[in-house]
Amino acid sequence: MIGAGRVGKNHSRAIVHNIAAARIVAIVDNVDPVRDETAAEFGIERQFNSLEGALEKAEFDAVVITTPTPTHLPLTAMAAEHQKHVFLEKPMALNLQECDAILDVVKKEGVLLQLGFMRRFDPEFVAAASRIEAGEIGQPMMIKSNTHGPGLPPPWARDLRTSNGMLAEVNSHDWDSTRWLMGSNYERVYAEVANFKGAAHGVDTENFYDNALVNLKFESGGLGLISGVCPCGYGYDARVEIVGEKGIMQIGSLQGQAVVVCTDRDRGLITPIYRTWPERFEWGYINELQHFVSCVQNGTTPRVGGIEGRWAVAGVLAGTRSFLEERPVYLKEILTGGPRAN
Amino acid sequence: MIGAGRVGKNHSRAIVHNIAAARIVAIVDNVDPVRDETAAEFGIERQFNSLEGALEKAEFDAVVITTPTPTHLPLTAMAAEHQKHVFLEKPMALNLQECDAILDVVKKEGVLLQLGFMRRFDPEFVAAASRIEAGEIGQPMMIKSNTHGPGLPPPWARDLRTSNGMLAEVNSHDWDSTRWLMGSNYERVYAEVANFKGAAHGVDTENFYDNALVNLKFESGGLGLISGVCPCGYGYDARVEIVGEKGIMQIGSLQGQAVVVCTDRDRGLITPIYRTWPERFEWGYINELQHFVSCVQNGTTPRVGGIEGRWAVAGVLAGTRSFLEERPVYLKEILTGGPRAN
Amino acid sequence: MIGAGRVGKNHSRAIVHNIAAARIVAIVDNVDPVRDETAAEFGIERQFNSLEGALEKAEFDAVVITTPTPTHLPLTAMAAEHQKHVFLEKPMALNLQECDAILDVVKKEGVLLQLGFMRRFDPEFVAAASRIEAGEIGQPMMIKSNTHGPGLPPPWARDLRTSNGMLAEVNSHDWDSTRWLMGSNYERVYAEVANFKGAAHGVDTENFYDNALVNLKFESGGLGLISGVCPCGYGYDARVEIVGEKGIMQIGSLQGQAVVVCTDRDRGLITPIYRTWPERFEWGYINELQHFVSCVQNGTTPRVGGIEGRWAVAGVLAGTRSFLEERPVYLKEILTGGPRAN
Amino acid sequence: MIGAGRVGKNHSRAIVHNIAAARIVAIVDNVDPVRDETAAEFGIERQFNSLEGALEKAEFDAVVITTPTPTHLPLTAMAAEHQKHVFLEKPMALNLQECDAILDVVKKEGVLLQLGFMRRFDPEFVAAASRIEAGEIGQPMMIKSNTHGPGLPPPWARDLRTSNGMLAEVNSHDWDSTRWLMGSNYERVYAEVANFKGAAHGVDTENFYDNALVNLKFESGGLGLISGVCPCGYGYDARVEIVGEKGIMQIGSLQGQAVVVCTDRDRGLITPIYRTWPERFEWGYINELQHFVSCVQNGTTPRVGGIEGRWAVAGVLAGTRSFLEERPVYLKEILTGGPRAN
Repeated sequence: MIGAGRVGKNHSRAIVHNIAAARIVAIVDNVDPVRDETAAEFGIERQFNSLEGALEKAEFDAVVITTPTPTHLPLTAMAAEHQKHVFLEKPMALNLQECDAILDVVKKEGVLLQLGFMRRFDPEFVAAASRIEAGEIGQPMMIKSNTHGPGLPPPWARDLRTSNGMLAEVNSHDWDSTRWLMGSNYERVYAEVANFKGAAHGVDTENFYDNALVNLKFESGGLGLISGVCPCGYGYDARVEIVGEKGIMQIGSLQGQAVVVCTDRDRGLITPIYRTWPERFEWGYINELQHFVSCVQNGTTPRVGGIEGRWAVAGVLAGTRSFLEERPVYLKEILTGGPRAN
Repeated sequence: MIGAGRVGKNHSRAIVHNIAAARIVAIVDNVDPVRDETAAEFGIERQFNSLEGALEKAEFDAVVITTPTPTHLPLTAMAAEHQKHVFLEKPMALNLQECDAILDVVKKEGVLLQLGFMRRFDPEFVAAASRIEAGEIGQPMMIKSNTHGPGLPPPWARDLRTSNGMLAEVNSHDWDSTRWLMGSNYERVYAEVANFKGAAHGVDTENFYDNALVNLKFESGGLGLISGVCPCGYGYDARVEIVGEKGIMQIGSLQGQAVVVCTDRDRGLITPIYRTWPERFEWGYINELQHFVSCVQNGTTPRVGGIEGRWAVAGVLAGTRSFLEERPVYLKEILTGGPRAN
Repeated sequence: MIGAGRVGKNHSRAIVHNIAAARIVAIVDNVDPVRDETAAEFGIERQFNSLEGALEKAEFDAVVITTPTPTHLPLTAMAAEHQKHVFLEKPMALNLQECDAILDVVKKEGVLLQLGFMRRFDPEFVAAASRIEAGEIGQPMMIKSNTHGPGLPPPWARDLRTSNGMLAEVNSHDWDSTRWLMGSNYERVYAEVANFKGAAHGVDTENFYDNALVNLKFESGGLGLISGVCPCGYGYDARVEIVGEKGIMQIGSLQGQAVVVCTDRDRGLITPIYRTWPERFEWGYINELQHFVSCVQNGTTPRVGGIEGRWAVAGVLAGTRSFLEERPVYLKEILTGGPRAN
Repeated sequence: MIGAGRVGKNHSRAIVHNIAAARIVAIVDNVDPVRDETAAEFGIERQFNSLEGALEKAEFDAVVITTPTPTHLPLTAMAAEHQKHVFLEKPMALNLQECDAILDVVKKEGVLLQLGFMRRFDPEFVAAASRIEAGEIGQPMMIKSNTHGPGLPPPWARDLRTSNGMLAEVNSHDWDSTRWLMGSNYERVYAEVANFKGAAHGVDTENFYDNALVNLKFESGGLGLISGVCPCGYGYDARVEIVGEKGIMQIGSLQGQAVVVCTDRDRGLITPIYRTWPERFEWGYINELQHFVSCVQNGTTPRVGGIEGRWAVAGVLAGTRSFLEERPVYLKEILTGGPRAN
């Protein structure tokens, strides 16, 4: 387990409590108190402050990388060169060159690579994808996908100089899900962004935005929308709506636990909302790691890998250029080297 | 319009605003300020403090009776003897003798009688009944119907010496709906009651209860439940659930307006609840009066009349005897003269 | 009542059955069988095949105009010049010149003008607007509004040479609602459209589209989305979602009647969807006409008039230019004469 | 793992896939093909056709008993006498004498006993119980709990000579949940039952019933309802509704996955229903076994044990006597030796 922060804790919890087939041998993080806390909470025996240390002294088959985006390429490369399979969190990288370098190294070293698009393993998304595939709503014409998250991202994740901002750090899943569920690549992207809460949060980073609406045109002719709000305060909100030639499908709901209470008719019914992403996608996180463990054990290819990660990065880059230049941006402007298949 | 209280106001609102085919000629109530207020609110020109006065001086085709239960027989008789058609609020009467007298007088005088079971005219209940009739859920096996109301009923309505208590004043609709939707008469009734809030409301009436759960056995072999809570505080709650040999049907919902808000993830989603019966059954009230007006204009028989009112009273009497004697009570003990068909 | 088609029938139904304060004196339509049918269905005594005829021979205070868009200006002008108040269906007109001419004539003649934006009178939209106004979700940051309708619009309504297409004929309400609920005018518009079903329906009109996703930037800095699909087949779907600085609000639901049925666990729960716009906005239609009647009786100004109609037309024109020219379009390009206040 | 049938498979799945802290050492079942199949499906290495065999040849800390009710006492006694902790499925036993014998043996041998009331570990039920405990809806006045199951129980489970019928085999959870959530013991029970589908299923067992409605009076004065339908065909339906002095709480929903589809406006919205108990209570089953494993590892007492199992059996016996004798039955008639505390 590389990275002991929020995502590292979340994956540790899944593995330690709910995945009988795997074990966390060691945890790597260079921030001592964070690493100590996560190790203690999940009973992880060995700790290292660098991947080098772990590679030298511990034995394991695979790594789970949950550190900030700029570290993804060097960590993946180092793990791959030591024949460790890699589970890599989204976004895959900062740009397509890094994505290509990651794809190249895992191919060369023959290790498996899975991207952390857990929505592909959420039981509701899985059922929906399979029903769309079976033709239940006909050819998809329009998709809307939103991720609104409760808290302000950390400084590195909201600055276009150190990350690709909210479109990447929050909406990566939407880029992947819309492409997956539409069964088509994006062709053209138009993005509008807004900054409503930056000042109140003391954020004066150039080009900071906390609201985004992205219009997508797919190669199939279909239309799409990605919506991002962060921080939204009211909960963790990830839903998809698809209209096909035959009908509509809604995936997910604002409602969390089915416990409804009313104690005051002037206030109304109260239902829990999903508060956080670990709560909303609890099974998605367990299932994606089960899948990775199973792939490692059986030597099979994970069903979501680097190509999917690269497409999401390409979409983010198109969306970012769109709002900076106030015009629709074609993917072919971004994918100058063309798409790649593996 | 006889009676200018809450029900009188509600029916006046429906007629004045939403029923183009009828007009309120006069309002009758012997409490001057209440009558004045209702007359002013709905622009009713003539006022009387007794039905005699109205019959003498005003011209009209029909009366709507919304006064307390003990007045139902004398008012209906007087109206019928003057050839006025009668729309009569539930419960029909205090006992079966009064029900029979009402049935007799309207039959003898040849006037129409409609009982105020507005759920029979609610679009959801109507659609449900028609789908059950069409066999969609198969033979009904089990029904549950509840009416939980927000406020404490007036003293006369909660005292077994002047009314039949909550089972009659609040749950009349459930008696009628369960019998209607099951397509069968009750055969046996067992009731449990409880008094949780009487003391806090300063009610020391003997046999007062504010919670009731009534178990029903129908002639068809089916089972039923009526549930009453009043005052419940949290809203107006009227829902039905039916299990048939082929499946389940739920009618109604706690949720009022489809406006969902969340501003705090620790508090959750907030949705309006139905606050009051006029709000929940707005269309039911309009439609039942449209139906009555249409019956009067066309001389057709209303589709819910005195026989239905009498069955509801019989159920109430069986339920009341059941909790007083702590045993199941057969309808045949109550209907000593047998059922009647008109 | 001018126009005896679908909208004319719908408004006739509301007036004849549910609006006690008004009466339809005559119906005007130049298609005899349609006019005859509507007159017969709602018991309208007098029929004319032109407004001129009605103005000459019948007495009335106001007209309800439900004919195709190109007729709006001449009919409104003629009615106004005869001192008749005007209730005018959306879209107001084909272009801003016509809108201005309508605004000018009603101002000059001193008659009232109300636009048929019934969502402004739907109880859910009204409650939502008032709660937003009261600050419940804070400053609105993002709004999404959709109208997906079941059937293919008539030929004139889907051809850019005779109407402004789906953005006008289906999505007029969204243009009005988003501007109303955001409390801000649109500043910039970007539209993507798609044609998925045209061929199957034998439509070869140039620039025909049946799917649209429109990205809005408001003067307030807020973002918006309008989504249109027609024909969508699956029902009538009109919902709004707003995210404010403090939280989220959802208005409307796919679910129609609260009657839930399950008879087969492999098929799942079945709930009615709203099938048509008259069903979804039944109260909106009654209430907007009640409001108009009340304004006419009291000489007060309707709360949604020509200025609102003109803004919706301006948005439509910007959206249409956007997808034709594949670029974001500023409202200032459309409103060359600038906004007007009355 | 003792018993390789449906419940044995379900618990095996949870342990093998999702409980990292425990391992199934061996499986016991005397039906060879069933045992072989379950062992193969979950990779369980050792198989025995009796508990004696397993005790002799395998090493383990605890047993999970999922065999039919009449075997519960002898298997528990044998395990306890070999110092194995016991996780025992509901219903605990056929009568109070057996319950007492189980309580006595585990006490004497000092082993832990947990009853399989998984609803006590379902996240929704847990949250609800804790919110009731915290006073959110005030003093509970009325509870309704239902379990409607899809399939016909096996012959032994629907015959009053070999089990306590549906009230025990299907509704055991409701007996436990109502008592738990009301915070009070039952005082009086009245049950109505019906047999609608027996003939069609070729069941001619005396006293067979497939519908039950049980009215409960609690020591606190509160009222309750247990409803059972089996087979109901339409899905697995387990919901609770509680009205307290301050308000209402609903736990659970018919709706399974939040995937809503509509392809035909005449058919309506389609949402998955919970099909089976393993699906509805997936987390409840994982969590109850996690709790048991943790109790065994730490030597702590499970939070639902034999006393709870015994109360559920007492309720079942009262309910059964009630419908056989057609009268309300007091728990004091059943608990002739009085309640016991450990």
